[in-house]
Formats: sequence, C-alpha cells, structure tokens
Amino acid sequence: MNYLDHAATTPIHPEVQKAIFEAMNHFGNPSSLYKIGRLEKKVLADCKQVIKDELHAENSDSIIFTASGSEANNLAIKSIIAEFFEEKGHLITSNIEHPSVRKVFEWAETQGFDVTYLPVNEEGLLSADEVAAALRPDTRLVSIMTVNNEVGSMQPIKEVGEVLVKHTARFHTDAVQAFGQEALDVSELQVDYLSASGHKINAPKGIGFLYKKSSAPLLPLIAGGGQEEGLRAGTENMPYIVGLTEAIKQMAARRPEQTTLNKELLAYLQEQLTANGISFEMNGYSESNSSHVCNLWLKGLKASQLIILSDLKDVMISAGSACSAGSLKPSPVLTALFGEESERLQESVRISFGLGSKREDIDEFIAIVKNLAKRQK
Amino acid sequence: MNYLDHAATTPIHPEVQKAIFEAMNHFGNPSSLYKIGRLEKKVLADCKQVIKDELHAENSDSIIFTASGSEANNLAIKSIIAEFFEEKGHLITSNIEHPSVRKVFEWAETQGFDVTYLPVNEEGLLSADEVAAALRPDTRLVSIMTVNNEVGSMQPIKEVGEVLVKHTARFHTDAVQAFGQEALDVSELQVDYLSASGHKINAPKGIGFLYKKSSAPLLPLIAGGGQEEGLRAGTENMPYIVGLTEAIKQMAARRPEQTTLNKELLAYLQEQLTANGISFEMNGYSESNSSHVCNLWLKGLKASQLIILSDLKDVMISAGSACSAGSLKPSPVLTALFGEESERLQESVRISFGLGSKREDIDEFIAIVKNLAKRQK
Repeated sequence: MNYLDHAATTPIHPEVQKAIFEAMNHFGNPSSLYKIGRLEKKVLADCKQVIKDELHAENSDSIIFTASGSEANNLAIKSIIAEFFEEKGHLITSNIEHPSVRKVFEWAETQGFDVTYLPVNEEGLLSADEVAAALRPDTRLVSIMTVNNEVGSMQPIKEVGEVLVKHTARFHTDAVQAFGQEALDVSELQVDYLSASGHKINAPKGIGFLYKKSSAPLLPLIAGGGQEEGLRAGTENMPYIVGLTEAIKQMAARRPEQTTLNKELLAYLQEQLTANGISFEMNGYSESNSSHVCNLWLKGLKASQLIILSDLKDVMISAGSACSAGSLKPSPVLTALFGEESERLQESVRISFGLGSKREDIDEFIAIVKNLAKRQK
Repeated sequence: MNYLDHAATTPIHPEVQKAIFEAMNHFGNPSSLYKIGRLEKKVLADCKQVIKDELHAENSDSIIFTASGSEANNLAIKSIIAEFFEEKGHLITSNIEHPSVRKVFEWAETQGFDVTYLPVNEEGLLSADEVAAALRPDTRLVSIMTVNNEVGSMQPIKEVGEVLVKHTARFHTDAVQAFGQEALDVSELQVDYLSASGHKINAPKGIGFLYKKSSAPLLPLIAGGGQEEGLRAGTENMPYIVGLTEAIKQMAARRPEQTTLNKELLAYLQEQLTANGISFEMNGYSESNSSHVCNLWLKGLKASQLIILSDLKDVMISAGSACSAGSLKPSPVLTALFGEESERLQESVRISFGLGSKREDIDEFIAIVKNLAKRQK
C-alpha cells in the first residue's frame, strides 16, 4: 500500500493505538465523584495542559474537545453568529475555506449577515492588507484558515492578527491542516479561536478541539451537562482524548525531521517529473507552503484517469479534499485560484506526505504518471 | 472494584475493545474514492444496517452517527426549532428530561416558543392522555424520554405515539438510557426521532446516534462536508462506529439473561435491606421500570455520607446523574417527583446494574449501609 493522501486522513500511530487501547481499560466518567471518575478528571486536565503547552496558550485559556475539526469550526463561528443574531453585522473569511467554515458563512448570509469572501492569489495567499481594507466598524468575526487543505498555502495569520488587535472583531483560524504539522503559537498569532483535528495527525477520526482565548466569548452548540466548562455537553471521549494527546506528543517530537523529509520528498517528486519529461506546475504554491501538501497540475493528463490508475496499483492520491471527493464538481479551491475555465481543474492532483512516506512511494506514483502520459500520446 | 453505577457509564466490553483496536488498523476515509475509502464506506453502511435491524427500522430510515446522546438530542430538537424559527409555536416535553433535552427547550422559550413541561407522578410516569390534552394545533414537537436516567421509569412511548399519529407534531424520544437495555421497535413506538448513546451499553464514551424516520425532516447542527447524508459534517469515527455496532450485538444477545439478572439483583437488594432492618422505599418505581436502574430512598441516611463511605470501599454508586453530579443541587428528577421539600432529595441513591454485576456487589453495598445506619443511631 502506497498512501500519498495524508491531507485527507492519516494512519493511526502505533503508540496512539496503544494509548487508546490502554485508556479503554479506564472507563470512569469524569463527572462522577468517586475515585475512577476523579482519576479521569485529572487525565482530562493533563491532556488539555499538553495541548495548551503545544500552542503556547495561557493557563486561563480553554481547550474544548470536539468530535472533529468541523465541529470546532461550527462551534466558534456559530457562537459569534448567535451572539450577534439580533444586531447582525459583517463577517470576513476567504474564498478557499473548508466546507465546514464556508457553509456556516453561507448560512449566516441567509440570516441577514454581510459576508466578505476575500480572494486569494495564484499562490493561494491572501494579504493582511486586504483584511484591513475589508474591515468595517460592525465586523464581528474574521475567519481565515491557517493552511489550505488542497494546495497547502499558509496564510499570514500573524499579520492578520496584528491588523485585528485594535478592532473589536474576533479572529478564528481553522488550523485543521496546520496543527501538529507546524509549530503554532497562539500568542504570536493573536487568534481568539483555533480549530484542530486528530485524524490529520495520526490520531483516529472522531476527535478534535477548539482553542479559545480566555477573553473570547463562546456559546455552546451542544447544550446539556456541564462538561467542557459548560461549552460542549456530552460525556468526554476519554480514550480518544488520551490518543490525541499522544499523537500531538509524537508529532511535536518528530516535526523537524518530518518537515525535512517532506521537503526532500517534494524536491524528489519534482526532479523525477522533470527527468521523465512530464510537464507540470505546482498549484497554489509559494515558499511559505506547508511542507506536507502539494497540488500538481500535470499538463494534459486527466486527473480522474490518474486517480483510477493509481487506485488499481494501490497508490492513493486525490483530486481535492476527501470531504467533497464524493461530488463530481471541480475543486472549489482550484476554481478560486484559477477560475472556472482553467484546464488545471481537470488535470490536477493532490499529493500529501506523512508518517511512513518514502522515496519509493514517489517512484511508484511517477511510474503511473509515465504510463498515463505514454497512453495519451 | 464494585461498580454499581451502570446508568452513569459502563465498562467497555472486551469484544468491543478488540473490535475498536482492530478497526484502528483500517484508516481509510469513507469519503475517499480509492479502495481503502470504499471499504470503509461499506463498513459504515453495514453498521447502520445492524442498528436499523435492532430498531426494526425501515431501510429508507436514517441512522446518523453523533459523538454522544446529548448531540443526538440537540440535533433533533434544534432542527425542529430551526424549521419553525420564524413562525414559532408550541413544544411539549416532560419535567424529568436529561439536561441535553431540558436545556434546549429552555433556550427555545427564550426564543419565543411556548413549552409545556408535563409533570410525572410519584412512579415517575406521565400519561399519554396528558400529552393529548396538552396538544395544540401549532404543537411542533413532543419529546419524551423512553427510560428516565435517575429512577428508571419507562414512559408509555407507544401510547404517546398513538396519540400523535393524527397530529402534525413530530415525536422524539431520548432513548439513551433505554437503547440496548430494552428491545425497541420504532415502527411500534411510532417515533420520528430516537437518540441513543454507546457508553451506556459497554461501548466507549464519544459515540451515539440519532435514528430518523425517512419522512421526518432534519437540519444539520454541524454544517460542512456531505457526511451522514449531509446531516452531520465531520469525518466519520469508524473505530467507534464499529465498536458501537459490536456493543449492540453483544447487548442484544444477552438482553434476556441480563434483564433476568437485573431483576434478581433488585429483588435481592430489597430482601437484604429488609432483612437488615433498613427502612427504604423505591423512588419513581413501577412494574414497568427498566430493570437496570433503581433509585432508593434510605430513610434517615444521608446520601452524601453513603456515597463517600462507598467510595472509600471502592463501591461506586451515585446520588443522581453523572451529568450533574458535579453540582451540589438536589436531583431535578427527584424534585419533580416529590417536591423541593421532600427529605427523599437528601436521602436517596441510585444503584444501577450491568455487565458483570453480581450478588456480592450488593452484599458489599448492604454492609456499608448497615455501617452508616449503626453510626446514625
């Protein structure tokens, strides 16, 4: 098996799997007052501390565990919408956000909010100046993703944070594709909310979290018991919380070497494409890109065919995000970058690296590309 | 360890733990188009079929996986509130619902909906006639729990379903404390929505589902990708979905013997209390009670002391639901049954049975009760 789709989801790290299995032996409810409950409450607090440390957050800030990055995005954005539901106002986001952000903003528009969807350039980047220019006195929220899931472009979050310091608008970043991969410091980025997901960093699907600055308001999406400071009801998923924490430790420990490896693999991929006479360009790429995602325009080669041929050889790549892979629509991200008419929409694939990725994976992929290119002639 | 708090949460069944561990080896994203994604998509469909079969649901009905029973309750009820947000209208529930139901109704009141909170009698039961009497032409939703989590009373869901057949109001039941324990047939109960949770039936915390009849509308709480028929965004938690399915199979297979055992344990508990001269009454009890939960008024004995003494001996019982155990307020359920002034509020504990419960557990509990009774004299 040759898995080159780590931006879609990732294999579970063996240490994470072990930690979850072990955690399943402790079934106390953190809300129960007796010993096995109190023990879990302590484990829960310890896990949150690890995440706060990873993010350089203050102790008074909050980590609210969710079932996914999508839930964390909905939680933060809908909270602001609910807070200003009577007054309405203005919201700012980019035009390349994940569906779990984009759809909430589209819904906000139907409820009477004004939304500015900032465009990005061909490198997949927006500028902090554009955010500054879009701001209005009644802007309630700015939500800009840290790293784009399809092209890997890393937005100038710190610069946007700087712009917003003197404005009352809250600042949210969807860091699902960045968290763990990149060293993130919330005090430097000056964000109020940050969303992350476990299954992008070798924890299972079904766990994520929202970071919330202590001064930022939050209304629950799921009401009920007093779990998660009353901000997210539902008995805490302790095994996955323990697993996510282990995944973060593992990721942080190997981040420098993984980043170096990712860069080497990308250079090797480009070298091999060139050496084999394959005409290509990188979509939405700049020096600041996150090292694990690359989006390739393979000129003249149909992505749909390449994906099928790859699947037959157990080489896994994708045309866009898995979240919308079922749909036959062209990638909204590539459309935002290059327009609806661009041939890139039909001729681009996403390759993404992670745990266990190696040169031989690239060799197999290159062989398939060569094969398709030969047939097309 | 003597665990007598299965209504709060349950130990994970070894077969469930094994199934989850094994499922973690398959990490495909069900939305990915290549083989490991398609395989997961098939597993997901198979799991839903097992649940539909367990509930006697139609194939066209939906099972929407959530992270908890609380999320399933919020999803169903908030969907109706959103549907009628402009028109408003009337909602009916009981006064002994779980916080994840009650708080959503309380919020609905702040948004201009009328809510009727139907009272229950001292057996913890409401009557279908009262539901019929409370109905208005603009009643949008009736939400009544199947089994109460603190006293185990089983509501006449089938009779309420009968009352609602000719009314446009939708019918939701929070079956978190009933599902798996009781054989439930949604066609017989005539419900539109049913919520359930895994951690009450020996699956881990962090997984639940909402059953939805095909004709019932539903708006997502978490917007984003097209997962779960577009009704709940977020990559599916495949290991837990597989684990929940295994837990359901295990529970269904041993339901008759577990129910018999629960009844024997309850009879034994009562016998032993009587034999040891402990004056008691069952709170909210009737013949129709679910067999695994019993709420005991131990006359003259302080529940808080009994719980602490039990904890010291590693005997785990609770005063109310774990979801509100952290708070020092008296149980809202017992308050609803007996009024704020009742001495029962301070002198009652919940004992609940499940996997591995045995007579010796009761003996240990009785010894602690005797000890406390002796001290009080």
